[in-house]
Amino acid sequence: MNGFINYRKVLIVGLGMIGGSYAQKLSSLGFEVGALTRRQQTLDYALERGYIAHGQTEVMQAYVSQFDLVVFALYPHIFVDWIRRYQDYLKPGAVLTDVTGVKRSVVPAVQEMLRSDLEFVPAHPMAGRERSGVEYADSRLFADANFIVTPTERNTPEGIELIRTLGCILGFRHIAVLSLEEHDEMIGFLSQLTHCIAVTLMTCKESEHLAEYTGDSFRDLTRIARINEHMWTELFLDNKDELLAQMDLFLDQFTRLRDALSGGDTETMKEMMRLSTARRAAFDKK
Amino acid sequence: MNGFINYRKVLIVGLGMIGGSYAQKLSSLGFEVGALTRRQQTLDYALERGYIAHGQTEVMQAYVSQFDLVVFALYPHIFVDWIRRYQDYLKPGAVLTDVTGVKRSVVPAVQEMLRSDLEFVPAHPMAGRERSGVEYADSRLFADANFIVTPTERNTPEGIELIRTLGCILGFRHIAVLSLEEHDEMIGFLSQLTHCIAVTLMTCKESEHLAEYTGDSFRDLTRIARINEHMWTELFLDNKDELLAQMDLFLDQFTRLRDALSGGDTETMKEMMRLSTARRAAFDKK
Repeated sequence: MNGFINYRKVLIVGLGMIGGSYAQKLSSLGFEVGALTRRQQTLDYALERGYIAHGQTEVMQAYVSQFDLVVFALYPHIFVDWIRRYQDYLKPGAVLTDVTGVKRSVVPAVQEMLRSDLEFVPAHPMAGRERSGVEYADSRLFADANFIVTPTERNTPEGIELIRTLGCILGFRHIAVLSLEEHDEMIGFLSQLTHCIAVTLMTCKESEHLAEYTGDSFRDLTRIARINEHMWTELFLDNKDELLAQMDLFLDQFTRLRDALSGGDTETMKEMMRLSTARRAAFDKK
Repeated sequence: MNGFINYRKVLIVGLGMIGGSYAQKLSSLGFEVGALTRRQQTLDYALERGYIAHGQTEVMQAYVSQFDLVVFALYPHIFVDWIRRYQDYLKPGAVLTDVTGVKRSVVPAVQEMLRSDLEFVPAHPMAGRERSGVEYADSRLFADANFIVTPTERNTPEGIELIRTLGCILGFRHIAVLSLEEHDEMIGFLSQLTHCIAVTLMTCKESEHLAEYTGDSFRDLTRIARINEHMWTELFLDNKDELLAQMDLFLDQFTRLRDALSGGDTETMKEMMRLSTARRAAFDKK
């Protein structure tokens, strides 16, 4: 394995919002970016805007085998299926990475079946938005976002360094390295739990007539309530044990606050508010 | 009662963030603004910046009796106490208003004891921030906020119109009129419940080390987790029945999503996400 400069030809598998943003940025940096995606219309859109140099809607060995670096921007189960069916097409020595939002359910499955001359270095660009589709691709989203590499003992130092560098040249603000378990706990708490809360708030009651009365707080808490139900259901189920643990932790604390209010226990209420205030203040300093 | 132009002298009782913002804006519009507040330092700050023309730290009849319009920007129980102790000092025919975030526990108590020659028109400027104190006064906050007048059958059309006009000249984006009950249900759901959620999220676990990994969602959901524990505990208790009802509604729905995840009931999960997405999309159009 050599430095990044030798990975000149990059294949993006799945041209959605994230795959499209990778393509856009890498093309602008001079890489030769190809794409595999199901719909010709998506390819046309990306070709017209110069996000990709070329692309295919069918997976063919002659096309796939030319790429040094392959980025999988697919739903978790489609990614695992793709590897099972098509890994024989990949160029010897190619490096694979992904953008999947859950890791324990995907990474071991892929790494265990992977050809020994290929390396898969998992990563999670934490730059989701409420929209999906290549027409929402915008690599400027990366400037405020974190890029998390989640290597395992099957990865080489060179492979990890290559994908760290990928995060860097894509323009992410912060690059971190976490284990699969650390990643899934963190994402269960920070991202999946917060999406569960936002969805729950919107399902509580018909709120359209309330829109005119809101201060910022309800808007803030429900911004992420526009959600792709297929992708998020799959991500939740793939991280079920960890997300359930985070939801139960939240339920315990929320019920504690509720019961303190119900019983007029002002000291518990104030204690929770003081802890919340102190932690959020520390958070703001970061 | 005459038009707004006859209410030239305005007294602000309580120079905190909201009271200070009222004073700042009304002075800039040419009103003669006085203030009552406990600390001389607060008065000095407001005098130096021209938020007020004069002020007192003690409640004296000779000072209080000169004002046509009196704005109470106090904690709920302090406001009720103030009326009980000092309403005899007020000028005959004066109009009173407030900024209190709960209404059923305050408005009847004040209106029932009030002198018959005074009128109290309750209002709630929904422009809170995570900070308190006159040094955070900034009337520009009103430009994106809602002003809610909550009159009762004891109010006159002229009094209601006067306080609507006050909201208007203060620069609020939207002026609405709600009953006390409608206000407290709405605020229980949109504001108090969301603050309970934010506080709960921050108390779930030590999250300082997680700050570097967050996408926007956790930051959005906990922005309001910096909270004045004395004021919010009082506001929660003053709206206890309604807030408990909103918290229980949230708990039911959150538990429904949790149980669907636990049981692998993807149809319920997707149905909640679709409803959430549709409602939030309608909300965004407002």
